[in-house]
Amino acid sequence: MIKVGIVGGTGYTGAELLRVLALHPEAEVSVITSRAESGKQVSEQFPSLLGVIDLAFSDPSLESLLPCDVVFFATPHGVAQSMMAELIEAGKRVIDLSADFRIKDIALWEHWYKQEHMCPQYVETAVYGLPEINRDQIKTAQLVACPGCYPTSVQLGLMPALRSAAVDTRNIIVNAASGISGAGRSANVSLLLAENHDNYRAYSVAGHRHLPEIEQGLAAILNTSVDDVNVTFVPHLLPTIRGILSTIYIKLDRDLDLHALYQEAYADEPFVDVLEQGRYPETRFVKGTNRCQISLENPLGRGQWVIMVAEDNLAKGASTQAIQNMNLMCGLGETVGLEQIALLP
Amino acid sequence: MIKVGIVGGTGYTGAELLRVLALHPEAEVSVITSRAESGKQVSEQFPSLLGVIDLAFSDPSLESLLPCDVVFFATPHGVAQSMMAELIEAGKRVIDLSADFRIKDIALWEHWYKQEHMCPQYVETAVYGLPEINRDQIKTAQLVACPGCYPTSVQLGLMPALRSAAVDTRNIIVNAASGISGAGRSANVSLLLAENHDNYRAYSVAGHRHLPEIEQGLAAILNTSVDDVNVTFVPHLLPTIRGILSTIYIKLDRDLDLHALYQEAYADEPFVDVLEQGRYPETRFVKGTNRCQISLENPLGRGQWVIMVAEDNLAKGASTQAIQNMNLMCGLGETVGLEQIALLP
Amino acid sequence: MIKVGIVGGTGYTGAELLRVLALHPEAEVSVITSRAESGKQVSEQFPSLLGVIDLAFSDPSLESLLPCDVVFFATPHGVAQSMMAELIEAGKRVIDLSADFRIKDIALWEHWYKQEHMCPQYVETAVYGLPEINRDQIKTAQLVACPGCYPTSVQLGLMPALRSAAVDTRNIIVNAASGISGAGRSANVSLLLAENHDNYRAYSVAGHRHLPEIEQGLAAILNTSVDDVNVTFVPHLLPTIRGILSTIYIKLDRDLDLHALYQEAYADEPFVDVLEQGRYPETRFVKGTNRCQISLENPLGRGQWVIMVAEDNLAKGASTQAIQNMNLMCGLGETVGLEQIALLP
Amino acid sequence: MIKVGIVGGTGYTGAELLRVLALHPEAEVSVITSRAESGKQVSEQFPSLLGVIDLAFSDPSLESLLPCDVVFFATPHGVAQSMMAELIEAGKRVIDLSADFRIKDIALWEHWYKQEHMCPQYVETAVYGLPEINRDQIKTAQLVACPGCYPTSVQLGLMPALRSAAVDTRNIIVNAASGISGAGRSANVSLLLAENHDNYRAYSVAGHRHLPEIEQGLAAILNTSVDDVNVTFVPHLLPTIRGILSTIYIKLDRDLDLHALYQEAYADEPFVDVLEQGRYPETRFVKGTNRCQISLENPLGRGQWVIMVAEDNLAKGASTQAIQNMNLMCGLGETVGLEQIALLP
Repeated sequence: MIKVGIVGGTGYTGAELLRVLALHPEAEVSVITSRAESGKQVSEQFPSLLGVIDLAFSDPSLESLLPCDVVFFATPHGVAQSMMAELIEAGKRVIDLSADFRIKDIALWEHWYKQEHMCPQYVETAVYGLPEINRDQIKTAQLVACPGCYPTSVQLGLMPALRSAAVDTRNIIVNAASGISGAGRSANVSLLLAENHDNYRAYSVAGHRHLPEIEQGLAAILNTSVDDVNVTFVPHLLPTIRGILSTIYIKLDRDLDLHALYQEAYADEPFVDVLEQGRYPETRFVKGTNRCQISLENPLGRGQWVIMVAEDNLAKGASTQAIQNMNLMCGLGETVGLEQIALLP
Repeated sequence: MIKVGIVGGTGYTGAELLRVLALHPEAEVSVITSRAESGKQVSEQFPSLLGVIDLAFSDPSLESLLPCDVVFFATPHGVAQSMMAELIEAGKRVIDLSADFRIKDIALWEHWYKQEHMCPQYVETAVYGLPEINRDQIKTAQLVACPGCYPTSVQLGLMPALRSAAVDTRNIIVNAASGISGAGRSANVSLLLAENHDNYRAYSVAGHRHLPEIEQGLAAILNTSVDDVNVTFVPHLLPTIRGILSTIYIKLDRDLDLHALYQEAYADEPFVDVLEQGRYPETRFVKGTNRCQISLENPLGRGQWVIMVAEDNLAKGASTQAIQNMNLMCGLGETVGLEQIALLP
Repeated sequence: MIKVGIVGGTGYTGAELLRVLALHPEAEVSVITSRAESGKQVSEQFPSLLGVIDLAFSDPSLESLLPCDVVFFATPHGVAQSMMAELIEAGKRVIDLSADFRIKDIALWEHWYKQEHMCPQYVETAVYGLPEINRDQIKTAQLVACPGCYPTSVQLGLMPALRSAAVDTRNIIVNAASGISGAGRSANVSLLLAENHDNYRAYSVAGHRHLPEIEQGLAAILNTSVDDVNVTFVPHLLPTIRGILSTIYIKLDRDLDLHALYQEAYADEPFVDVLEQGRYPETRFVKGTNRCQISLENPLGRGQWVIMVAEDNLAKGASTQAIQNMNLMCGLGETVGLEQIALLP
Repeated sequence: MIKVGIVGGTGYTGAELLRVLALHPEAEVSVITSRAESGKQVSEQFPSLLGVIDLAFSDPSLESLLPCDVVFFATPHGVAQSMMAELIEAGKRVIDLSADFRIKDIALWEHWYKQEHMCPQYVETAVYGLPEINRDQIKTAQLVACPGCYPTSVQLGLMPALRSAAVDTRNIIVNAASGISGAGRSANVSLLLAENHDNYRAYSVAGHRHLPEIEQGLAAILNTSVDDVNVTFVPHLLPTIRGILSTIYIKLDRDLDLHALYQEAYADEPFVDVLEQGRYPETRFVKGTNRCQISLENPLGRGQWVIMVAEDNLAKGASTQAIQNMNLMCGLGETVGLEQIALLP
């Protein structure tokens, strides 16, 4: 049984880790920290876990985490980097759901996150935790930096096309929409139901923090410089709790059967479905699951391709993908504990 | 492995049976019928099941169901009774999610459902499938009539109080609210999103079909005549997909510590939670699960008790309760395959 | 043109006052205060008012309000009472949307609102602003205390029945549900979309601050002591922005044609509709309007009456009712500026 | 007083016409037809109109429409063309909200709408009813073809940029999202709340009927052939009732201050707001109104412009725009009866 520690257990990605790990047959949560809720039973915070988890939140401390085999950070950026050196030196395997170790270019990270990086020495060796791309490195990684929610959908949505070397990589447009849980569990008027129900809007259009991560990821797939990639990324806020749909627009420099290419590329991937032609993904089909569903369309055969990618921002876009990484790191079956099926309706 | 057949697989309770049975470790769906979708892959109808179930809908017929150990009816009322005699005679165990065999008084059934009962000979021996009340009879039953969604919540919400013999049973008020999936997957303007989003209303106030079932159930708990029970039952429609919250108002003829009484009554029940005093159930805490959560309050100590009961109308109120019945009937652990935890958020 | 001042213009009732007063033909908002947003254009805060209102928020001060004919308080409780004496002495007409002057029994107010009342001398003469009950006193009032959202619906829903003197006033049950805007525009995790969408729950079951106001109002209608009235009031939170539906349960001590009674009682009321028998109110039918729609039902003729009352909590339950009061106080036609029709769909 | 007839009064655009015309100071609805609801009071169908409109639906017939000054068609495509010749010959002014007379190329219309056009002789002279572009022709038109909901947003969003002659018109991408009321009031499982709440998806990606209308409109603005315009148009379905947000991606062939250009272009337009830089439109700001709000952004100054356009699909995208056309045709003030302000919250 893998002993798991979770730092930052009261946010939405922490809650999602708990939900899935509570039923994981080969892992158990032995420590969960929260400064604000220390001493409180997990099931008091999340009544959905009544009778399922008997554990209280504890103050975050290195000591409490040392008995764990794997430590997850489900914290805002800035926290993981402040505790990382000691955990790494203590030999812990660490899975960071925050943005702290995703961007290899530290100056770029500091530019977008507007703070000095406190632990640059582990950025280089951190493995970017997108299993469909980095499976082998993840298996042996000590520190895995889990991808952001939007970047997961964009990279999975573009990977096979990029590998064909036919994409005009200077003109990629990503029109994405996310449920509001992506903004986290924070007391913010702009996240109230009364401000968002029956509403829809774009945000961070001038520049969103996931853009450098997306461009770095696409460049890595292309094995090229990030300067060769130009993405226009416009996120939107859906009046839903969960779900991301990225609608991606690309041009190819030659004719390709993209659909066949994608089917082949993902044929053996347990969590990526390429839908039949004419069927499109919906966020509800993947809600609460580690799945990603993809469709491709070339409207009227005019040459502008449209790629649609659906995932659950808190699941494949965060917490269940983190557990997929844990499975790989610990030599478990990659799908263990991740068989959830979306509720329909 | 228990071979399961599902009659009527394209409605919401059929979809919910599929979702849960797909991961059930000791049962597998071997037949699923749908006249309208015969020949279509289940995963084409429900893309959430892509890669999980490889089965096509078939035309409903006795022959196709004969190899099954257990047959579920997830059909509108009137269908199960038309096929029941042959299935019973063939020795099949049958779990009916419809209303066909719930009401013991056949004239009463015919009055409320406005049609002649086609199979009255099995009404008497059908076991009412509320495990928390009828566990032993369910184990050996050949035909189980699963409770309606509202009646499940009301009976679980009132059972311990009624057994105290202190309730004024002539003045029970049930103000219930349900998500719209309770109305089924039917092409009806009144169920459109555009007609229900950001809306709330009562319906069937003059009389709802679940009332006679509720009164029969409460009388059975009391071991008294249905004439001794009088319930005012007003259902409301929530702008949500799933979830029932029944708010029940009762008076007691003497002082009782209802909270302690309920905790004791449900201490060993795996699927019923009596919340701590001051905590109230929310439909989201039980969504997609077989759980029922109950709170009790005596506002200002004035003697009018308020009992709140939350369940998922498609799960504990229908399909997962049906599987709980199957587990009992087949000698499996009662909770096998029913460990789902609600998504939060 | 009536010069209007609004104290507390950035909350939801303030925004609703602005929306309706912006088009009122005989009033204009000349001052709107907000300590937090002082100096900011109203249309920057509420882009729906772009090109409609050219006014900036100002710091709250007596001086700025003195040129106004009417001052509205759209503030949390405690604010109006802190400024009231000076406004009254300056001869201003004041319409308070908060709870400060609703409860005549000051000790009771202090008990429920957990603070000392700072301006008890004007409580006695404040007129309770429910026009359908107090129309004449409102016309000449200097200070009008607008009813709470729930109390408006309950009093309008019960008034004709109570006047019949046939109601068992010791056993009134009010099961109410409200959209989340009733909780105000405050940065509170429990009001997030991610915590409330697709959810439903009761709250304040042990006792809600609107209960003493409801019981005082019903006693006033009955012309009796508040001790003769006993209401069990259970509010619920809907996953909608606006809308209240109160489902009220009463018993009569003799046979009455309640429907005819209500139709007659409200025949001349411009904002109260008694629906035809068999039609029930829905919150969407009155959203954004000053209307209240009422239905009555006696399920199965068993004698337990069900009264359903729909209103918009921010409109008839708050801001448009406040404007209805202003119209009466200023000798305008009661319906002037209040002709809004709900969006369907 | 202008006498108005509405053909097809029970759909969503018909309901919206009624809501706004009911309070229009210079028009009154004298005939409203519905084959299905003939004889029924309008307020029985739409309880929001209780006490506001006293009119019953009537069978559609030429005779009943002849006394009207203006006839609106709020019908599916195919209906207006079947009655148009007689109305035109009778001298009626007609405002068609359907697609029947929008597309000038009849073969193209027949291709996309998959039926023969029954009244091609009036297509040429029908005026396309987008007042911000065709104001003068609308004033004298006998037949106005109101734009589709998506095309309205796209044309208003692109018009000033196109007139600058700097847009790469072969590479326009429109990623649009609409509330579900755009699909009409039809009994269709795919429009149920249970199928759409908490969901998001693209649809008609292979080709949507509004595409030829969009391309025709953009070509007209450019005064060029439709072959010079290439738009990739991907509509998405929001889990909301109303609202369209079109996110448009264009490239310019030279540097332009697009924001200043748009502010100037729309400075005198009563219903188009160009928001301050850094503020983005939200569908809630324009809900229930004839307004359109537009923002422009050039993310990171990279040269790919993003234009966001919000409107209410049933209002500016359909019925209130139709009334704006009526005002122009009848010599009334363009904004008469169209001053509605969106509800916030």
